[in-house]
Amino acid sequence: MPGAAPPARGARRSEADPLRQPEQVAALHRRIEEIVEVAAMCGVNVICFQEAWTMPFAFCTREKLPWTEFAESAEDGLTTRFCQKLAKKHNMVVVSPILERDDVHGGTLWNTAVVISNSGSVLGKSRKNHIPRIGDFNESTYYMEGNTGHPVFQTQFGRIAVNICFGRHHPLNWLMYSLNGAEIIFNPSATTGELSESLWPIEARNAAIANHCFTCAINRVGTEYYVNAFTSGDGGKAHHDLGYFYGSSYVAAPDGSRTPGLSRTQDGLLVAEVDLNLCRQVSDKWSFKMTGRYEMYAEELMKAVQLNFAPNIIKE
Amino acid sequence: MPGAAPPARGARRSEADPLRQPEQVAALHRRIEEIVEVAAMCGVNVICFQEAWTMPFAFCTREKLPWTEFAESAEDGLTTRFCQKLAKKHNMVVVSPILERDDVHGGTLWNTAVVISNSGSVLGKSRKNHIPRIGDFNESTYYMEGNTGHPVFQTQFGRIAVNICFGRHHPLNWLMYSLNGAEIIFNPSATTGELSESLWPIEARNAAIANHCFTCAINRVGTEYYVNAFTSGDGGKAHHDLGYFYGSSYVAAPDGSRTPGLSRTQDGLLVAEVDLNLCRQVSDKWSFKMTGRYEMYAEELMKAVQLNFAPNIIKE
Repeated sequence: MPGAAPPARGARRSEADPLRQPEQVAALHRRIEEIVEVAAMCGVNVICFQEAWTMPFAFCTREKLPWTEFAESAEDGLTTRFCQKLAKKHNMVVVSPILERDDVHGGTLWNTAVVISNSGSVLGKSRKNHIPRIGDFNESTYYMEGNTGHPVFQTQFGRIAVNICFGRHHPLNWLMYSLNGAEIIFNPSATTGELSESLWPIEARNAAIANHCFTCAINRVGTEYYVNAFTSGDGGKAHHDLGYFYGSSYVAAPDGSRTPGLSRTQDGLLVAEVDLNLCRQVSDKWSFKMTGRYEMYAEELMKAVQLNFAPNIIKE
Repeated sequence: MPGAAPPARGARRSEADPLRQPEQVAALHRRIEEIVEVAAMCGVNVICFQEAWTMPFAFCTREKLPWTEFAESAEDGLTTRFCQKLAKKHNMVVVSPILERDDVHGGTLWNTAVVISNSGSVLGKSRKNHIPRIGDFNESTYYMEGNTGHPVFQTQFGRIAVNICFGRHHPLNWLMYSLNGAEIIFNPSATTGELSESLWPIEARNAAIANHCFTCAINRVGTEYYVNAFTSGDGGKAHHDLGYFYGSSYVAAPDGSRTPGLSRTQDGLLVAEVDLNLCRQVSDKWSFKMTGRYEMYAEELMKAVQLNFAPNIIKE
């Protein structure tokens, strides 16, 4: 069964400008439409785009306004309706990570992946569980930690889940998607070279091994320039970009193998044929779920979060 | 501060024979004594040997008897007393993973690491939490899952913990040692090439990243031959060895960097100088503990282990 992984963003040196929101979104829709056409020719069944794919990764700027203009409804926003058309046309499951405007709950913002069935209907959504507080990633001023838990989506082509970006660093996040039955966990990301490139080949690959599932690590590519300069709180001068998004998207398998990475400098489409039987086969061989002792960890974690937790430290 | 990692076993093609237990143990003591002398010359403060270092990894044979003769008391066995002398002589913390005979509890066996302070006193012990059920690793017929939890040992040279062998595959095991304050987590192992060599560079390194601590992945080296042939339940012929232990011990740092590996074919001593300040520095940069949402996971895990657990699967 061909699964799929994801194009990185086309803009390699683009001026980001919130006042041009409609035309920027339209241009990205056109670009993705082309890429999905190619994916369909390759027989792709499930596709996932990068994190917040319809916008520049503006969370580095602390202006916040009017960047919030890029937020859309997960259920019936312009981008979701666009993806529904693609999904139906190509009989393809589409995972579309956007900045969500939640009008049902006071118009709050979320970092959300919308999962669209190959029938064209919205299957559901999965929000980013872990929000970074690091460097210029000022996301925590835009939205809060997700409240959708760890949903797994039963599609015609397998059970999939979405661990958005910073959740990649949290092994428990991968684990809970896996305990809910995920066979493929997508990790749509936007992360820069100086920050995380040394960790990138390790984390999603370890998650595939530890959870007997496939993982798809997806990153955007290029540098995005902002008109208004911003400082980084590191003593350096004000500057106009967040750093270099290094692409290098890849797919890892439960046996520890992985695909080559996509380009570091150009957008692209990575198509991987994944045999989901491998999840069960590797699990029956290694049995990490059986040997996991989760009850012990549930109890220990519950103690560890108490205010009066006393770490188990043995002294002479 | 020089920390340390560990020699792999000297025997590269040794006949394993339980009837020669006293002389085999004595030979291993002599070999380790030499290696610890060298470590002392290098200024090593903390040393950890490989898993079950005083014996062949006999758990592949299902004879069980008389291999149990290699078990010793953690508190006052011959090997612990030997390590106490080394520790005191060289002002060095010694982590000594052995097959433990627990006479206080009916003479049961455990896979246990004894931690000996640089003063020469026994600081405590830490038992193997996860026991493999894979291939020829028939350990689950010799001993049970450890009941010592996730102790961290406060030594004069830093807070250390011991995640024995198969616990390497369980991210929660690393996490709990880290939540209890470990700055260095040793992973004394005995694992063979065909089984795990593709996973070896990933897992301990990911654990160092995910937990803002140092990890030391330690493996034995060589092939051990058993007089009595055994089958592996894989349709193959009876044979005399468990496979090739591939050494390749290494130390990984919280920033994702790592040392080169020790030899794949020869025993050795890997000395690494680790700056424990890096744990706090990386933690203050990345803040995985702060963003970890452990309370949510404690609750979700508690639900996941219930008999009536309903996985969170969304269907069309």
